[in-house]
Amino acid sequence: MENIADEVLKGNRLALAKAITAIENERENATEIMKQLYPHTGNAYVLGITGPPGAGKSTLTDKLAKEFRSRGKTVGIIAIDPTSPFSGGAILGDRIRMNDLAMDEGVFIRSMGTRGSLGGLSHKTADAVKVMDAFGVDVIFVETVGVGQSEVDIVKAADTTMVVLIPGMGDDIQAIKAGILEIGDIFTINKADHDGADKLQTELNMMLDLDGVMKDWRPPILKAVANQNIGITEVVDTFHKHRTHIEENGQLTVRRTERAKNEMLDLLDAKIGQYVRHKLVDSGKIDGYVEEIKSRKTDPYTVVNGVMENMLK
Amino acid sequence: MENIADEVLKGNRLALAKAITAIENERENATEIMKQLYPHTGNAYVLGITGPPGAGKSTLTDKLAKEFRSRGKTVGIIAIDPTSPFSGGAILGDRIRMNDLAMDEGVFIRSMGTRGSLGGLSHKTADAVKVMDAFGVDVIFVETVGVGQSEVDIVKAADTTMVVLIPGMGDDIQAIKAGILEIGDIFTINKADHDGADKLQTELNMMLDLDGVMKDWRPPILKAVANQNIGITEVVDTFHKHRTHIEENGQLTVRRTERAKNEMLDLLDAKIGQYVRHKLVDSGKIDGYVEEIKSRKTDPYTVVNGVMENMLK
Repeated sequence: MENIADEVLKGNRLALAKAITAIENERENATEIMKQLYPHTGNAYVLGITGPPGAGKSTLTDKLAKEFRSRGKTVGIIAIDPTSPFSGGAILGDRIRMNDLAMDEGVFIRSMGTRGSLGGLSHKTADAVKVMDAFGVDVIFVETVGVGQSEVDIVKAADTTMVVLIPGMGDDIQAIKAGILEIGDIFTINKADHDGADKLQTELNMMLDLDGVMKDWRPPILKAVANQNIGITEVVDTFHKHRTHIEENGQLTVRRTERAKNEMLDLLDAKIGQYVRHKLVDSGKIDGYVEEIKSRKTDPYTVVNGVMENMLK
Repeated sequence: MENIADEVLKGNRLALAKAITAIENERENATEIMKQLYPHTGNAYVLGITGPPGAGKSTLTDKLAKEFRSRGKTVGIIAIDPTSPFSGGAILGDRIRMNDLAMDEGVFIRSMGTRGSLGGLSHKTADAVKVMDAFGVDVIFVETVGVGQSEVDIVKAADTTMVVLIPGMGDDIQAIKAGILEIGDIFTINKADHDGADKLQTELNMMLDLDGVMKDWRPPILKAVANQNIGITEVVDTFHKHRTHIEENGQLTVRRTERAKNEMLDLLDAKIGQYVRHKLVDSGKIDGYVEEIKSRKTDPYTVVNGVMENMLK
């Protein structure tokens, strides 16, 4: 392939896959590809989907993607896969096999893990979003399997964030609800045919009431049964409603400026991290430091100060 | 309080709490405290507890802590709380209220979040472990609520890591199992009185068999019903067994060297991140960059390269 970025811009799906692989594996050409694609970004609408494991996020995302397709939109799905560092992306494989979406040329599905990573997952996800954006996809889902801080940070970067919950989750559900209350623009109770859906909806409503701060957008709490295709059009309609809302009140611009800022800092962190690892780890210098730290001749705080003085202007 | 570190070393519980708060909030005195405490670390045994939300990790950890207490050990518990950035640690409050452990002078419980954070959670957790270690606690539990990458990284840093699962978790359980297979030294199926416990045990055994690589430690798969105090002594016995095993084969030293290395790199990342944010964000310089990026006059990759050239020697 002559020039991967050119091919991505021409709509070559293989080039799209190659570009994301280059990002994921931190290949040398990744930065060059991103530089070339960057001017062509900013057109796609980015939807974040998060929630606890077992909430049926993948199924729901797939149904939503189909609904967007039936409305004439092309769709990208980036599934953040916390297991990739271990399993090498087995889940995506399973997902593709089971998924008739994969046969649709208007859909592009990709999982992102931290496999082989030196830098962070969040700037890689941001770059993958940009590649799909430049490719010309209309709507991009960023779906996180985890409920950890890094996953929350990732979906926070979306234009609109939806939190998926299900009735009757164990002990930690209060914790999860508290944690996600402030990031959800939309809440969807999936598996709403199970016992406890109304109770969960009432609880969420109460928590949103208690949230106190006057907001010009009250997050709707929707119900769906994704695997029976129930509630899907309503969710997509609500996405559109939220998008129109934040376009009109200027919040979309604010969010995207914030995103650009955070992405720049993430990228800088990752690149400096690479530089530091190169200087310390690849050179083997770190082993001497670690021995001195372990034997308590010195402490990590003193060593880190010294290293920074040597590295930074 | 004259000198927090001195007071920690004398066994002052209030000083211990203050030291961890200083770390969590990145107070100016945090590094000085850590430098003073560092020479007194290395004696505690660190146990990582992870697993999906709803697995009953808190209850299990509390029962294990009681068992260690009944064997004459003092215990520290650090609960990594992904909701703290949002909710201000409400969970810990709930936990303390419900928890008779909090009345025991031989137990110290603390939650860690990313609230108010500029740096990462993982170096703060590492520092909190060291404070408890220097304080003189025998066993330290690091318990993560999430299943995300950052949480996994945190428990990976333990001497022994236990993964807690429960029967009959939804769609994502396969994903979780794949992800945690390689980090678990011990697996415990909690709520083992529920349907599906035997099935889960069989599946885990099969996955461990398929894992292929010859290992000198086959992770045991235990069963427990934490809220009925069933299986607790066996888990603690297995912790001891694993500890003896890795002490004898030298793996403990290897793990601790690896931990010291990763902690140093984490600390360096966090400190450099602080420095970068200070230089760019606090000075307001970043806003100009972001505007140029947003208007597509330049791209983030070019900006980051330029910033690095200006900052690094």
